[in-house]
Amino acid sequence: MEREELFRKISIENEKKIVLLVLDGLGGLPVDGKTELETARTPNLDLLAAESELGLSHPIAPGITPGSGPAHLSLFGYDPLKYEIGRGILEALGVGIEVGAKSVAVRGNFATLENGLITDRRAGRISTAKNREIIAYLHEKIKKIEDVEIGLYSGEEHRFVLLLTGEALSDQLSDADPEATGRPILYTRAKGKAAAKTARIINNFIDRLTAELTDFYPANTCLLRGFAKYPAIPSLGELFKLKAAAIAVYPMYKGLAQLVGMDILETGRTIEDQLDTLKKHYAEYNFFFVHIKKTDSYGEDGNFAGKVSVIEEFDRWLPEILELTPDVLVVSGDHSTPALLKAHSWHPNPVLLKASFQRQTLNSRVKFSEKNCVSGILGTFYAMDVLPMMMANALKFKKYGA
Amino acid sequence: MEREELFRKISIENEKKIVLLVLDGLGGLPVDGKTELETARTPNLDLLAAESELGLSHPIAPGITPGSGPAHLSLFGYDPLKYEIGRGILEALGVGIEVGAKSVAVRGNFATLENGLITDRRAGRISTAKNREIIAYLHEKIKKIEDVEIGLYSGEEHRFVLLLTGEALSDQLSDADPEATGRPILYTRAKGKAAAKTARIINNFIDRLTAELTDFYPANTCLLRGFAKYPAIPSLGELFKLKAAAIAVYPMYKGLAQLVGMDILETGRTIEDQLDTLKKHYAEYNFFFVHIKKTDSYGEDGNFAGKVSVIEEFDRWLPEILELTPDVLVVSGDHSTPALLKAHSWHPNPVLLKASFQRQTLNSRVKFSEKNCVSGILGTFYAMDVLPMMMANALKFKKYGA
Repeated sequence: MEREELFRKISIENEKKIVLLVLDGLGGLPVDGKTELETARTPNLDLLAAESELGLSHPIAPGITPGSGPAHLSLFGYDPLKYEIGRGILEALGVGIEVGAKSVAVRGNFATLENGLITDRRAGRISTAKNREIIAYLHEKIKKIEDVEIGLYSGEEHRFVLLLTGEALSDQLSDADPEATGRPILYTRAKGKAAAKTARIINNFIDRLTAELTDFYPANTCLLRGFAKYPAIPSLGELFKLKAAAIAVYPMYKGLAQLVGMDILETGRTIEDQLDTLKKHYAEYNFFFVHIKKTDSYGEDGNFAGKVSVIEEFDRWLPEILELTPDVLVVSGDHSTPALLKAHSWHPNPVLLKASFQRQTLNSRVKFSEKNCVSGILGTFYAMDVLPMMMANALKFKKYGA
Repeated sequence: MEREELFRKISIENEKKIVLLVLDGLGGLPVDGKTELETARTPNLDLLAAESELGLSHPIAPGITPGSGPAHLSLFGYDPLKYEIGRGILEALGVGIEVGAKSVAVRGNFATLENGLITDRRAGRISTAKNREIIAYLHEKIKKIEDVEIGLYSGEEHRFVLLLTGEALSDQLSDADPEATGRPILYTRAKGKAAAKTARIINNFIDRLTAELTDFYPANTCLLRGFAKYPAIPSLGELFKLKAAAIAVYPMYKGLAQLVGMDILETGRTIEDQLDTLKKHYAEYNFFFVHIKKTDSYGEDGNFAGKVSVIEEFDRWLPEILELTPDVLVVSGDHSTPALLKAHSWHPNPVLLKASFQRQTLNSRVKFSEKNCVSGILGTFYAMDVLPMMMANALKFKKYGA
């Protein structure tokens, strides 16, 4: 029996509530002997850790550094090597576009073309207002190419999403992006015959957009990449009978959550806003995914102190979450983003799981840290097993087999 | 290379003896700070643990609570998600029926029908003697339906096994069991056309049995469930070149052992009886599975003290097993059955492995407990890897690859 078939078979609905708190890029590496998590003063997390099960999880497998897409799929209980999610899809979902089975989504940048060469891949980071103006203009000018409908949606600054909808479209296309300045427009190429029509339409679109935007310098051409069809992922409802909601600030994480069937709750930009949203909707769902982004952002910037400060800020808000008394609470990351590496890394995630039926009895003192998680009662496991463990602890799984 | 193919390729025969002692449902959860195993006074197990390798095993995967079938398959070295064993097969094997490829085995209950409604799903738990009498009577009356032979076998109290043998039979049938009293007889339904013939025969059987038993109140109808064909599982002999014997008291565990090709040794009902059987047959086999049931029974009853007492009783007999000086000895559970939950659970099994070639050096003092197994030298792993580890420690595995 396949893993997903098993979940469908054994999952049951009940009233118990699960809260998954994800500090993006939480895991780190030591600088002056201590990781970001070890450096942070986290009295509330430490108290919680003393009565929780601890462990470490590999986002994908030992040694594999994940992007946000596979890392989150894994946290949501899916085998991250089974489903591939194109970046175009993530962007599209993030800006709230409904993407169907007949669509191909594409990430677009406005860019600057001078004397036949791309001179700025971000068109001087034009304002989002300007972006909207250009998109509105293009929307009137380019509605259809051959039999394919053209959808255009503004993102922030120079970013937009292109959505093609029609028959026999493919996402097997190379990026139309020279990835450097001083080069001419790079057209897409079809990877195989089945993508020839889509390639023709995309390249025609680039030419028409460029022709339309002659008066819009510096935004007078575009780069297109991350061609992606909608992946057929069963929802958390189908697999686990969960009624799930996401409280995330950034488009990509909303997109990921929506992809697995979560409702996206409107929220503000701070951790406080996110917790207010959690409280407000607490009665309506039995699974909450709360995504805190800034740990990762600071990690990527190499800002060790900044990442420490976000962990400490989260720690100050933790008691308010505990007051909701969720039946199962997990605090973890989607992957590690050590400030030392200024990038995502392969190091496993610290995992804290608090529930009623656990072997862990109260520890007098334990710091929530990567090192203490190594010797935790959960051991080291795959992140895709976190959700099954939460299900078990919420008594939402029946016995398998007689 | 597939796992089973690997085992076939690298396993060799030698004289070394392996003893697998399974305390059913051994793992627990703390009550007043200690699990059943932590509470039990186990001086002999603790002495053994101090010179053994310890670890924890997931019966199926993190978070998955297994039934006895998949949990034992896993302990016997099989991927428990690869083979599904219907309950009917287990029951049939347990009462010693030979089931072939053309048969479908079914669990039956005698039940009580009054004014067209099922009023007792167990027919007042009639005596086993009465059951035998009814089965003998029915055996004369219903020998064949269409071209299908009808086999009937008494179980204990109200239970029996129905065995259909004939061409083109299927086990893709819904249970013929309303699962509640106050409802009429529920007939089976075929899940697909290929099962139509079997469904017809089963429903005809229910009608004929009910017509024959009008004078046998309270056992005047039946419920049928767990329709199952024989799964094609390679034997422990084929995969591991083991000559294996099972010493188990309860039918289901004998059935499971037989399914993987073990000889079932006649034994009595106490741990002492089982050990006598082990000693008596010790020269004849190189693998012994000894199954102790009562830890699980007390766990299921929520009887913490009862479960503790079985562990302590086992501990008193342990020195006699050690006197046999098996080359590899494992003490573990098939799954956890915490008295706190009164049910099987997903918590991993404590595992103790004693052999000659291990890294563990003598610990002055270690209690055999779930918590000490967390930090054991074996780490946390999947239960289906226990048998390969036993094989390795018995030097029954060759090197893989050059």
